[in-house]
Amino acid sequence: MTDASTCGNATDLAERLIACPSVTPAQGLVFDALEAMLVPLGFEIDRFVRGEAPDGPVENMLAVRAGPAGSRHFAFAGHLDVVPPGEGWTSAPFAPERRGDLLYGRGAVDMKGSIASMVAALGQIPADAGTISFIITGDEEGPAVYGTRALIDRMRERGLAPDLCLVGEPTSVNRLGDMVKIGRRGSVNIWLEVEGVQGHVAYPHNADNPIPRLVAMLAELDALVLDEGTDWFQASNLEITDLEVGNPAHNVIPALAKARISIRFNDLHTGTELGAKVSEIAARYGGRAIPVISGESFLTPPGAFSAMITEAIRAETGIEPELSTSGGTSDARFLKDVCPVIEFGLCNATMHKRDEAVAMADLEALARIYARVAQAALRS
Amino acid sequence: MTDASTCGNATDLAERLIACPSVTPAQGLVFDALEAMLVPLGFEIDRFVRGEAPDGPVENMLAVRAGPAGSRHFAFAGHLDVVPPGEGWTSAPFAPERRGDLLYGRGAVDMKGSIASMVAALGQIPADAGTISFIITGDEEGPAVYGTRALIDRMRERGLAPDLCLVGEPTSVNRLGDMVKIGRRGSVNIWLEVEGVQGHVAYPHNADNPIPRLVAMLAELDALVLDEGTDWFQASNLEITDLEVGNPAHNVIPALAKARISIRFNDLHTGTELGAKVSEIAARYGGRAIPVISGESFLTPPGAFSAMITEAIRAETGIEPELSTSGGTSDARFLKDVCPVIEFGLCNATMHKRDEAVAMADLEALARIYARVAQAALRS
Ligand SMILES: [Zn+2]
Ligand SMILES: [Zn+2]
Repeated sequence: MTDASTCGNATDLAERLIACPSVTPAQGLVFDALEAMLVPLGFEIDRFVRGEAPDGPVENMLAVRAGPAGSRHFAFAGHLDVVPPGEGWTSAPFAPERRGDLLYGRGAVDMKGSIASMVAALGQIPADAGTISFIITGDEEGPAVYGTRALIDRMRERGLAPDLCLVGEPTSVNRLGDMVKIGRRGSVNIWLEVEGVQGHVAYPHNADNPIPRLVAMLAELDALVLDEGTDWFQASNLEITDLEVGNPAHNVIPALAKARISIRFNDLHTGTELGAKVSEIAARYGGRAIPVISGESFLTPPGAFSAMITEAIRAETGIEPELSTSGGTSDARFLKDVCPVIEFGLCNATMHKRDEAVAMADLEALARIYARVAQAALRS
Repeated sequence: MTDASTCGNATDLAERLIACPSVTPAQGLVFDALEAMLVPLGFEIDRFVRGEAPDGPVENMLAVRAGPAGSRHFAFAGHLDVVPPGEGWTSAPFAPERRGDLLYGRGAVDMKGSIASMVAALGQIPADAGTISFIITGDEEGPAVYGTRALIDRMRERGLAPDLCLVGEPTSVNRLGDMVKIGRRGSVNIWLEVEGVQGHVAYPHNADNPIPRLVAMLAELDALVLDEGTDWFQASNLEITDLEVGNPAHNVIPALAKARISIRFNDLHTGTELGAKVSEIAARYGGRAIPVISGESFLTPPGAFSAMITEAIRAETGIEPELSTSGGTSDARFLKDVCPVIEFGLCNATMHKRDEAVAMADLEALARIYARVAQAALRS
């Protein structure tokens, strides 16, 4: 299988996607390019735009190649938007350039390269093996309000229910295949406020300084041990990320003190529960907490699906991947509500940086790994 | 003595001063008005301007009526600047208006009224009784960098050394004469900073969040008991007056956290010692402290001078004044370095407020009290 040809060289496909500028939120051209690749391979394309400023509009694409009735359904998921290129590139960020073994361009690893490898993998997956879908958003790097969430709504409307989903985020660290993400921590940001009574520092008995109560509250929150971690997750972590009073008057006791915290939590918690816990602590200091959940945690416990991915990586690279739940959030936080989801993709060393680049050999190897995973999933 | 005429009705004189707008820093017109009152009474006038923006220029006046060689020297001290009038006045703030028993206008009690009473008192103080001086600044309500400090320098240059000094701040609370200030607490503002290493909340081990260290430092500072107070002073007090991080990014651990505290302290401390103490605590949390001393504390312990004032108040009003050290700072913090200083003046209920007003009877009674104090001081 290692030598089998993929459907179009993954590097060529990656170049075609990189050549379409698509700073988040992506629309139009880059979706046209992907559509042009998938239509000849038998995919039915469903593109739609959702949302209004400031979090939209966002373009999304659901591409489905239906297998025989009753067959399994495997989904590839990813995003065509990229973060802004910034300054200082050696070659133009949206003019893909091969130098040595590498292909340079914004999105090379995060994640136009992975999407190219998914398309290239299709050459190895017979149409009658089962249903294959591409769940592709134009807003993963931005607010992500009208992206993958809208795609999930669309799938539900259309009665599309994948059995397994692979997200192509760049999870590899030093070598392609060294890390797979089977879960992600959840994230909740909580705004804290304590009100007092303004006054003059010379007459503190006529005032009620809210700052000592905020400080005591923050000391308690900072000392909180949320958990000790689990088999698959590191311990949940709370960071105080901001303090704000904004009192220019040296002699004035202010009336309001504010802070913000950010909690990254494992699957022992939910954002809602943590918001309630912090609110209760805040209330004891006469303050209040306003939680905004960015994403709940997810875990696809090691099992059949992770074994398929591990086996495919081992077969193509000889590497035994680490199953990890480290790092930030991804759209897997939404897809977990649809079916078991795991993330695996290219090396992330240059993601979001200038001179983002991918080893061309990795693009081709990733295509072969994706093909193995899809075939195993459709057989399962 | 109670019925003796004063040199010009104090209310008339107060009206003339209030009619000269003099929002801090005061210059020109209002000094012209005071000069026109003092010159006919035999005073030698020394007006000078000091300083540049942002804390200047500031006008000051040193007016001296020298007594016989070897006679005692008694000083009246005060300020001609006023705080901005703000909105909502019943009559124009710089158009003095008599309504009922009251005279309305910005500065009526703080402290053009008191200065008018000082001038009116001169009619009761024979020129040969001793030396009388007026130490008058145009910047007490502002930064006060080029005000009374410059006057003290000028006095030193000229070899003028009063034996006792009475500051006309509005110290009375409910009735004229109910409170005299024999001391004031000192004031030091301290800027606190803790540096850390910026990072992403998902990777806290790669960052060093300065906020928990600042919070712990502030909790220790807030719990500090500086002292239990003295016979003449309430306990020293520390207030946290500001917090600042200014981090708009929810996912970022900031690199710098700042706070500001304000300490009002009694004569058991100095600003320098407190700055050093807080710096030492800050250092234990990897932070640093930048103290700015607004004024050291002062105390003129009860004795002959306070007895003169108490006796004068009792004789004119029948009230036994409370000798207090409460409240904010005043220019007595500078004058204490020259000679014993005590503050006594009008009722402060409307100071710094709209519709600032003084009872006209109080202006006349205060003139008689000031005359008694000056006579006693020159005899002492
Ligand atoms: Zn990505
Ligand atoms: Zn004043």
